[in-house]
Amino acid sequence: MTPPSRHRPFLTAAGAPLTRDIAVVNEFGERSVASIPAERPLTVYVDKRELVTLMTLGAMPELLVLGYLRNQRLVRTIDDVEAVTVDWEVHAAAVQTRHGIEDIEARTAQRVVTTGCGQGSVFGGLMDELEDIRLPAASQLTQAQLYGLLDAIRRQETTYKSAGSVHGCALFRGEQMLMFVEDVGRHNAIDTIAGWMWLQDPATMAGDDKVFYTTGRLTSEMVIKAAQMGIPIIVSRSGITQMGYELAERLDLCTIGRATNKHFLCYTAPRRLVLQPELAAPRAGRPAPQGA
Amino acid sequence: MTPPSRHRPFLTAAGAPLTRDIAVVNEFGERSVASIPAERPLTVYVDKRELVTLMTLGAMPELLVLGYLRNQRLVRTIDDVEAVTVDWEVHAAAVQTRHGIEDIEARTAQRVVTTGCGQGSVFGGLMDELEDIRLPAASQLTQAQLYGLLDAIRRQETTYKSAGSVHGCALFRGEQMLMFVEDVGRHNAIDTIAGWMWLQDPATMAGDDKVFYTTGRLTSEMVIKAAQMGIPIIVSRSGITQMGYELAERLDLCTIGRATNKHFLCYTAPRRLVLQPELAAPRAGRPAPQGA
Repeated sequence: MTPPSRHRPFLTAAGAPLTRDIAVVNEFGERSVASIPAERPLTVYVDKRELVTLMTLGAMPELLVLGYLRNQRLVRTIDDVEAVTVDWEVHAAAVQTRHGIEDIEARTAQRVVTTGCGQGSVFGGLMDELEDIRLPAASQLTQAQLYGLLDAIRRQETTYKSAGSVHGCALFRGEQMLMFVEDVGRHNAIDTIAGWMWLQDPATMAGDDKVFYTTGRLTSEMVIKAAQMGIPIIVSRSGITQMGYELAERLDLCTIGRATNKHFLCYTAPRRLVLQPELAAPRAGRPAPQGA
Repeated sequence: MTPPSRHRPFLTAAGAPLTRDIAVVNEFGERSVASIPAERPLTVYVDKRELVTLMTLGAMPELLVLGYLRNQRLVRTIDDVEAVTVDWEVHAAAVQTRHGIEDIEARTAQRVVTTGCGQGSVFGGLMDELEDIRLPAASQLTQAQLYGLLDAIRRQETTYKSAGSVHGCALFRGEQMLMFVEDVGRHNAIDTIAGWMWLQDPATMAGDDKVFYTTGRLTSEMVIKAAQMGIPIIVSRSGITQMGYELAERLDLCTIGRATNKHFLCYTAPRRLVLQPELAAPRAGRPAPQGA
């Protein structure tokens, strides 16, 4: 008997141009052209009911919508999604579900404005589920793998390099990059990765051997979303906030920040990071790292 | 006849410690202590009705709440606010209004998730009001004033310098800094400035001679909030997003980004910036600026 084929929803592939050229003037009074990242409204309709409007770069809108539904716990499994149809002409994403979203009114009524560097909106009830999360105790990353990961990020072609003003997120297995995405909002980027993971074979998408990378700060939302995906290690180019720190401690989730080149600071769950100080860049002429 | 004294609501002064020390491990395997910014939930109750929970550094929570109510257009004038009482023991801000908020259910029902670098929540109807905004046509800033402003920012003592991971915003009159605030979310910072402005003499708080500075990106929300305060010029250390660009163009609002030291790029309404290229740093050995 062959195993039943996995369900894969119908998805459009409505990518859109990621940058736009505009005229600028610099401090010498010179006119030139600069690239800026695109930013588009995308209104999500679930079974013809308007849910939310996301502002997005537009790189992978279908995965963004899937991941948004997943991370907001509005849809429980990918099997419940029949189709995601994105149409940039009308800036709309139409989601068709198999069974509808139970109790949608009540579940989207409570509003928490979180940090992001904006005011992130996380529908209520999300914090409640943290109590049930147990991250795999054995998961670790070596310092050599961390350096490999940072090198992969450095080599990645990005909209950030050409136009700035976007956040990047990536999913790694050890130092192997599985998925990279950018968006104007970093929460869109992490949601897009969650959407992508939902479409993969669940057997390969357990979080225990995964590492999440973000260019943004290690905020409570970052920690919560990684934990929800079962990922026990997050690496960031930036620092950590207090809520991010407290949640990561409670969840036994390893947070590593200020990570560029050969530098980093490990904030929480340091036992998950296998230190290899002999790999660190020689210290000559450089003061010891400071600040968080 | 003496003019009637201006209304000033009762405000607590519930500032709280802005940083916290945590243990960290660096790439040499060395343990040390680093400062991280504080981050606290603050649930806002208006006339005993729960409105929203903000995550904040906690520097000036009363002004944050005032500015949030102002920028969300939930309260029309400062005269309608009787008191803002913040109590960190219960992480609550109790707002007492004179007349209540008309139609509060309907006005907080629509949700737009915007860029920030998180998913900012702006209650519906905010975009509708942009049509009525006319920024003062004559307002300008000279390149010398811009350099003075950037120098004031550079000299400011900040939580960012000691702990990183916060956004700063400032209000200037020309190169004179009137108000500076930091928060974990930059939208909190701009809201705090809006709250502070509400408490000043309206005669001195017209936007026409003001400049808004932000460390964050020039997103649509930044542009909208500055425009709502009547401020025709925004300066940022960071770049601009497409929605920010399009709104600024439509509003004739001058946006200046990548502004550090003697560098900048003017993206929109360049006639508001009086160029003085002779003040620019000499170019020797440095390539012309690129990117946005």
